[in-house]
Amino acid sequence: MDLDGILKPTLLLDPHRCKTNILRLIEKARAQQVTLRPHFKTHQSRLVGKWFREEGIDKITVTSVDMANFFAEDGWMDITIAFPVNIRQLVEINGLSEKVSLGLVVVDADTIDKLGRGMRHNVNVWIKIDVGTHRTGVAPTGTEIIDAMLEKISSNGHLHFAGFLAHAGHTYQGRSKAEVQQIYDTSLDVLVALKQKYIVDFPDLKLSVGDTPGSSMVSHFGPVDELRPGNFVFYDLMQEEIGACIMDDIAVAMACPVVAVHPDRLQWIIYGGGIHFSKDFLLMEDGKKYFGRMVDIGSTSWTTKDIKDNPYISSLSQEHGIVQCTKENFNRYRPGDLTLWLPVHSCMTTDAMGEYTSTDGGKIDHYREHVYL
Amino acid sequence: MDLDGILKPTLLLDPHRCKTNILRLIEKARAQQVTLRPHFKTHQSRLVGKWFREEGIDKITVTSVDMANFFAEDGWMDITIAFPVNIRQLVEINGLSEKVSLGLVVVDADTIDKLGRGMRHNVNVWIKIDVGTHRTGVAPTGTEIIDAMLEKISSNGHLHFAGFLAHAGHTYQGRSKAEVQQIYDTSLDVLVALKQKYIVDFPDLKLSVGDTPGSSMVSHFGPVDELRPGNFVFYDLMQEEIGACIMDDIAVAMACPVVAVHPDRLQWIIYGGGIHFSKDFLLMEDGKKYFGRMVDIGSTSWTTKDIKDNPYISSLSQEHGIVQCTKENFNRYRPGDLTLWLPVHSCMTTDAMGEYTSTDGGKIDHYREHVYL
Repeated sequence: MDLDGILKPTLLLDPHRCKTNILRLIEKARAQQVTLRPHFKTHQSRLVGKWFREEGIDKITVTSVDMANFFAEDGWMDITIAFPVNIRQLVEINGLSEKVSLGLVVVDADTIDKLGRGMRHNVNVWIKIDVGTHRTGVAPTGTEIIDAMLEKISSNGHLHFAGFLAHAGHTYQGRSKAEVQQIYDTSLDVLVALKQKYIVDFPDLKLSVGDTPGSSMVSHFGPVDELRPGNFVFYDLMQEEIGACIMDDIAVAMACPVVAVHPDRLQWIIYGGGIHFSKDFLLMEDGKKYFGRMVDIGSTSWTTKDIKDNPYISSLSQEHGIVQCTKENFNRYRPGDLTLWLPVHSCMTTDAMGEYTSTDGGKIDHYREHVYL
Repeated sequence: MDLDGILKPTLLLDPHRCKTNILRLIEKARAQQVTLRPHFKTHQSRLVGKWFREEGIDKITVTSVDMANFFAEDGWMDITIAFPVNIRQLVEINGLSEKVSLGLVVVDADTIDKLGRGMRHNVNVWIKIDVGTHRTGVAPTGTEIIDAMLEKISSNGHLHFAGFLAHAGHTYQGRSKAEVQQIYDTSLDVLVALKQKYIVDFPDLKLSVGDTPGSSMVSHFGPVDELRPGNFVFYDLMQEEIGACIMDDIAVAMACPVVAVHPDRLQWIIYGGGIHFSKDFLLMEDGKKYFGRMVDIGSTSWTTKDIKDNPYISSLSQEHGIVQCTKENFNRYRPGDLTLWLPVHSCMTTDAMGEYTSTDGGKIDHYREHVYL
């Protein structure tokens, strides 16, 4: 791997690791006849999207109307925006629905009403259910609210009820296969009970779930129709801690120059801060925060052997990273050297960086909200 | 203030508040005959830079070689890069030094050596001193190291020793004028002692300090030559907590649509997450985190009266913000409404957003690393 041309903080993407992650989940979903509708908010890249398409994926998930437009213009024809409808963007949503088979997520009857009055093309409408994450979604016990929402959907010719959608984000609290399976199963039970109640009136209704720990760690997906995980395309240190991946699966690494070394406190300063990594962190056993872990530079990519003995990023300010070393590894690098770091939360790091450099050489695109529009 | 055209997360900049912040510090520095060399990493905007220039500022500070280029191309001719020299960018540094009076920061003799051998134009070299923040810099007791560095500087015709530079970042731990003054004074004492030691050999050596709490709260700057604060241009909730500003000084606010409301837990969900605000947070008295505070929409800008009774952002994921309300304020907004939020750390929020919308209407530019190059 030739890193001589890397002069400043740069996000490396290993296509081999990334394609392996993609293929593994595609095969797992296919074997269980579950539709994989990957969430593209993690990679936000047309090239990475192409790798999915080459494996037969034709349905995707995104976060925003603008990200949907970005991928629609690249030929994706079936897109779900997995975020409560932002009714202020009704004009843009209308425009999108003319071009693609569009899925929207709703959490209240009023918004459905406004949506219904504004749409001039057909859209699929998913009711978001709160299966325990308590971020957003309708409580599964709130069947009066669901009834009112379904009435609004049914009374408008352009709105088609697609089914119930959930994000079991509390799988991120799990730290074993058993824990994640249990959260997954409980969440699914909630959705299945709703399906049983409403399938008489809506025989086509589907169940959509999606989070990377669940998708990666659960053995049997059960009676779901589609999965919408995103992070698995790269994984990260958080997923490794949960148990959703191993270190060697992580497909992105930050390259950062060392700019100072402080032998008295066994620390390096790297050029790479919160604006590059984002400020998500994990806790070590002794309660100390860390924001990234060093990997070793290999011949074609990085290697992760003995990574837990490597230096870690103990603090991030805007552009500085403080790296904690030990006596054993402090002398490995000097100012001017390039170091490689696995991120804590790859979705946030890739969004902050806004482009990739492939370990094979060359740039890989990333969606840019403000530049694109 | 017409917010109808704002459809999605948008960073508002109030030019009136911003220009007031700029002028206040310019006048304070001028009254004490201290050079103000504002750090442009907070705003990263050529238009905001123009507001400084109109008040007579002609020297600036930036974080990176690329940001220096961005402002050099806008006519700034005296730029200090207040970050340890990233020697991997030697070619770019050489290019810059041909065009502008360039200041660089060094923390070790080896890097000075490499710099000296590579430079083809004159540059000013500042030795960074660690005055107690323990991020980077040479320990003030490390006079052998300083001697070795000065020898390297002096032995190269293109390197001119400018003086000692420090960032007393530990003023951010202060919570009163007395505490900040004390940290400022202690830091300055360290620099003054060094100056006394080295002025015989380097009669032109200067002292440069800079942080927003110090610059804003200290009454007497003492025997420093220049100040390099950045955040004061906008301030934020963190600075308000320290006591460096009042709520009404904060010159940027995030506009975010409400997309869901949850009466059972008195929460709203806003379209605005970690990729918009960044994930810096503050702690309330009861130990709960908050990531932003709501302000009220006024006729020409936002207003901050009774802000401490307003809803606050209790959690941020990638694009969602969870807002905690009370019974009294929960019904103020509904899905589809726009809400305004003061950020915890404006440097990080502006970097994440990458552009501004003026409260006067129109867009305001912001540097974009990957797009610009």
